[in-house]
Amino acid sequence: MNGHIDGDVVRVGGDARQRFHDSRGYGYPTDGNAIALAPVEAAHLLYRGDLDEVDGMDFRAFVRDATGDGFVPRFLVYADLRERGFYVSPAREDWLQHVSAGNADLIVYPRGKGPGDGEVAYHVRVVGERQSVPAAALGDCVLAVVDEESEITYFETARTDPSGTADIDLPSGVDADLLADRVVCWEPPARLYESGFYGTPLAGRDADHDALQLSLVEAAYLAERGAIELAGATIRDRGRTVEGDRFGRRLRTYSELRERGVVPKTGFKFGADFRTYAEFEDIDEFGHSELLVRVLPAGHVFSPRDLSLDVRLANGVRKQMVFAVADEDSGEPPTWLRVERLTP
Amino acid sequence: MNGHIDGDVVRVGGDARQRFHDSRGYGYPTDGNAIALAPVEAAHLLYRGDLDEVDGMDFRAFVRDATGDGFVPRFLVYADLRERGFYVSPAREDWLQHVSAGNADLIVYPRGKGPGDGEVAYHVRVVGERQSVPAAALGDCVLAVVDEESEITYFETARTDPSGTADIDLPSGVDADLLADRVVCWEPPARLYESGFYGTPLAGRDADHDALQLSLVEAAYLAERGAIELAGATIRDRGRTVEGDRFGRRLRTYSELRERGVVPKTGFKFGADFRTYAEFEDIDEFGHSELLVRVLPAGHVFSPRDLSLDVRLANGVRKQMVFAVADEDSGEPPTWLRVERLTP
Repeated sequence: MNGHIDGDVVRVGGDARQRFHDSRGYGYPTDGNAIALAPVEAAHLLYRGDLDEVDGMDFRAFVRDATGDGFVPRFLVYADLRERGFYVSPAREDWLQHVSAGNADLIVYPRGKGPGDGEVAYHVRVVGERQSVPAAALGDCVLAVVDEESEITYFETARTDPSGTADIDLPSGVDADLLADRVVCWEPPARLYESGFYGTPLAGRDADHDALQLSLVEAAYLAERGAIELAGATIRDRGRTVEGDRFGRRLRTYSELRERGVVPKTGFKFGADFRTYAEFEDIDEFGHSELLVRVLPAGHVFSPRDLSLDVRLANGVRKQMVFAVADEDSGEPPTWLRVERLTP
Repeated sequence: MNGHIDGDVVRVGGDARQRFHDSRGYGYPTDGNAIALAPVEAAHLLYRGDLDEVDGMDFRAFVRDATGDGFVPRFLVYADLRERGFYVSPAREDWLQHVSAGNADLIVYPRGKGPGDGEVAYHVRVVGERQSVPAAALGDCVLAVVDEESEITYFETARTDPSGTADIDLPSGVDADLLADRVVCWEPPARLYESGFYGTPLAGRDADHDALQLSLVEAAYLAERGAIELAGATIRDRGRTVEGDRFGRRLRTYSELRERGVVPKTGFKFGADFRTYAEFEDIDEFGHSELLVRVLPAGHVFSPRDLSLDVRLANGVRKQMVFAVADEDSGEPPTWLRVERLTP
């Protein structure tokens, strides 16, 4: 069976509607028994031998002819999802029935369902590993990254809303020094560390808590609430000096987490900004941190390889990777984006 | 017992030599029983209560006075290593006996040894997490990073020399197409994939190997050896178009690994450039990849947080993190730097 190219579709006549559309979810019915196929669908039918030629081209010739604009990655993901047993439609708004395309490239139906059933398993956005992906484009789709060796990694992306139960009655006016890019509190009330998990005791956890080291974000947060005897503005200025704009974004994220009852501590050992505890009550019996948080500026654009690094690390330490996108200027709280590996 | 500041040292008289130097390895003997202490040593003795004051300053006042030039991180690492049971000397070339300072900040002696014994356990370089570290400064030292919450992470850095036993007789002139940023070989000899681990079969590992997808670095390497029927220069040009300078560095690293009998495959899932197999013989029985390789330009400067991310990920997947520093212009092979977590 053969097809022919007509603009951006491949038309197939004969009994194509029944053979390809009705029974296997390919293409869009046009007149009579004919269907229109998107190029990835035509390529897949050529690849499987269900179509013989399109305008005289076999699979190899068709693919060589169609390499513009991300065609190969899109074909590879389409073929992979088909191989996993899904019906998949190219996300052409004018072809979709009862579902919307969003900013996806492919619409994947739940197993056993197809176009026309009105249900979507995944909205899939396809990129090659060298393409960048705006953070703003994620949050309600699956990102399929085709790496340089044509292996596919799927990431589920979702908006999220961290919350916790931590609560601590802050002291006021604790004596403190600003020492270069950190702060030391002298003779702080024990609850600041033990119940609030602020700071790191100077001599390690088992020593007397007569001095507590605070990071600049911890100190700025505490200073703004009068808990330590240093001006918030002084610490913020120092933060900006040593970290630039990043400091304001990190402080906004830190403060928002604390206000939500979540305890953030440094994520340095995981290469992140923060690790977080949703249920911290006491230093002697706190559990596993649940999230790794990386703070990003508004308008951030991901490199898929960096995303892969963060998500793989978080997975390996049994935490969720969350990105806080914080706009330095807006005064709005950050938006939260969770990304995790997915096997469709 | 008190000390006084004299230029960049703190002098202590009385029986200081016997009490602090001879029995515990602090400072440098000067005249009679007096010693000179580096500021971190004086701070540590004040902190422990072994010294009462230095020019009227207690520990808090002394530290507040001394915060220039990385003093606090250096003190924290010094104190941590002392707490772990090591004798530690500030790396002042003029004070060291029988050992050299290199580019370290602190010299750590083997447990049970001290200054004068002529043995070094670690040359330690200390940085705060916000300082950057030139790759060229690593390779023969331990890097101690003090994070924003004053926790310390130690990284052992060493030169390394990847080698392996992989060997494959390359075919010649295999038919191939360059498709955007990848290459497809048509009807390649099975050994290219099965014995050489070049490429990814188009339809997944279990399908017929009638088409093999190659990454641009794989294809450029094979093309330059006549194994595929495309010009090396054509592929390198495409590589440069889609990746810029990075492509040349990656190709040089890839080629050097292959020449050393090591099989590199993409490290995308780990956020690295390559994962490598030292003993690949056959696709049906190959083991665990041993290294993750990130390719860096000559003159690269690490952010400690990025280093922490890479090393932690590698550790979590039981691989070693190796950086290949490749100079685009020199024609020299890359230099190899291995970094791993260390508990002193």
